[in-house]
Amino acid sequence: MPANKVLIIGAGALGAFYGSLLAKAGAEVAMVCRSDYAHVLNTGFVINSYQWGQYVFKPHQVLRTVQDYQDTADYVVLCTKVLPELNRVELLRPVVAETSTIVFIQNGVAIEAELSHAFPEHEIISGLAFICCNRIEPGKIEHLAYGRLTLGSVKNAVSPATEQLVGLFQQAGATCVASANIIAERWVKCLWNAAFNPLSVLSGGLSTLAIIQTQEQLVRHIMLDVLKVANACGYRLGLELIETNIANTHAMPAYKTSMLLDYERGQPMETEAILGNAVRAGQAANIETPYLATLYALMKLTELRLSK
Amino acid sequence: MPANKVLIIGAGALGAFYGSLLAKAGAEVAMVCRSDYAHVLNTGFVINSYQWGQYVFKPHQVLRTVQDYQDTADYVVLCTKVLPELNRVELLRPVVAETSTIVFIQNGVAIEAELSHAFPEHEIISGLAFICCNRIEPGKIEHLAYGRLTLGSVKNAVSPATEQLVGLFQQAGATCVASANIIAERWVKCLWNAAFNPLSVLSGGLSTLAIIQTQEQLVRHIMLDVLKVANACGYRLGLELIETNIANTHAMPAYKTSMLLDYERGQPMETEAILGNAVRAGQAANIETPYLATLYALMKLTELRLSK
Repeated sequence: MPANKVLIIGAGALGAFYGSLLAKAGAEVAMVCRSDYAHVLNTGFVINSYQWGQYVFKPHQVLRTVQDYQDTADYVVLCTKVLPELNRVELLRPVVAETSTIVFIQNGVAIEAELSHAFPEHEIISGLAFICCNRIEPGKIEHLAYGRLTLGSVKNAVSPATEQLVGLFQQAGATCVASANIIAERWVKCLWNAAFNPLSVLSGGLSTLAIIQTQEQLVRHIMLDVLKVANACGYRLGLELIETNIANTHAMPAYKTSMLLDYERGQPMETEAILGNAVRAGQAANIETPYLATLYALMKLTELRLSK
Repeated sequence: MPANKVLIIGAGALGAFYGSLLAKAGAEVAMVCRSDYAHVLNTGFVINSYQWGQYVFKPHQVLRTVQDYQDTADYVVLCTKVLPELNRVELLRPVVAETSTIVFIQNGVAIEAELSHAFPEHEIISGLAFICCNRIEPGKIEHLAYGRLTLGSVKNAVSPATEQLVGLFQQAGATCVASANIIAERWVKCLWNAAFNPLSVLSGGLSTLAIIQTQEQLVRHIMLDVLKVANACGYRLGLELIETNIANTHAMPAYKTSMLLDYERGQPMETEAILGNAVRAGQAANIETPYLATLYALMKLTELRLSK
């Protein structure tokens, strides 16, 4: 059986890490590297994993842009941030062949429709990464904790392509599971993200632990707003998820959210994907989300101030 | 008729400015200056007013602490910020004589009870300043805009002592009015303060204009929360106040709130007096204030971060 061909778009920590796992499993992995192209072309990625130790990942191809890819990918995997200024469909269009499966391992809710509409005939897999993984310098990735990947078809089912991809990740030794309910799982992840990401930024840099230890009730209110929207959208999330999330955050070490890291580095934040989309989904379903909407508005004000 | 004796506690911009007006009107004004004592003792205050030009105000007495005051004041005027770490009753106790009228020209809501309970036999006057006035260096005050002072007894009436004090300010040429409804007016001022003060800080430094131009709906929601609490507390504020406040803020020049100035200077903010008291008044009256409560919680997180 010939090796699977994988094209990863977005060579940040997440893309490089999961790309390296697919390479471990024998796939031919090409990477589109925007900022670190020259460095990665020369030396590949050095990945320092709490789980697998330090290893080098040399992609099968290193590309500057998607247009440079001349092959036909079995899997085109989108690992960029989800930002309004970054057109996901335009990124995918040039490299999605008739036989390609589209995968996105990205944050946010309500980010499926854009791709389903643009590629109605294609299998599209939604991926959720629970991982603590940072790019510390060009080509250098630190995998600090966790790593679980959940994959499922955007049709909210486990497709054969999903199973095959899950198998590849598992072959590499990763914790990867298939879900027949991936859209709901996205909302579950959003419970946590929509609370702690903006609170860490708007407080000017507090850790998750400082936040939960002093403002648990606010966190609960925000999560309840998200849960109400998810339920109104047809994804039944139980109330107990909120208490589980709160208890887990108390138990976690003091953690800097990804949005806070972006904020501190002056990089664009996933405000729209995580908060804006949730607020708009609530509006569409006629659900009031005062806590969530306040955080969203404050993040927009913060972005406005940063742009000045 | 002998000159009125006035003791002003708190020699910030507000205390120095209103003290200077009472001196203009012929009162013997003593000032308690914590930080600028030596400077003010030597050279007095230099006040640069858009209305009266530049003038020097030499207090009748300059004191380091309230304990140093040996006279009997007709009016003891509290002009400090309202902060949890600053005990207003303890500040007043040593200088409130049997015949003294207590006056506080301070921000915040629900800040009367503390004084009424401590001084049940005394006339207490609540003052609200609508003024743009800053201390730019020790002993140097800039009066940039506005200046109106509203005074009224905390019993929500116009007492003779109120009328006399209003007369003194008017004698100095100031715009000063008596109100028989000063507690409600405090809530009216809180509509604006509770929205723009925290939004300017939490956005990291936006002006009132940038805020109202981009997040008018959020401002409306916050003001509505405050209005509901005020009404539940028995102070009937009309909904039209919200639209007037919004329209006025659009018409004002881009303005930095006092809380933002404190934030930028690393000085304590009146989070509790403006937001905390409003939220707690809502809780006591069983009124939900999700927008206000989110801002309050975020300000507490910001203060926590600043304390680290």
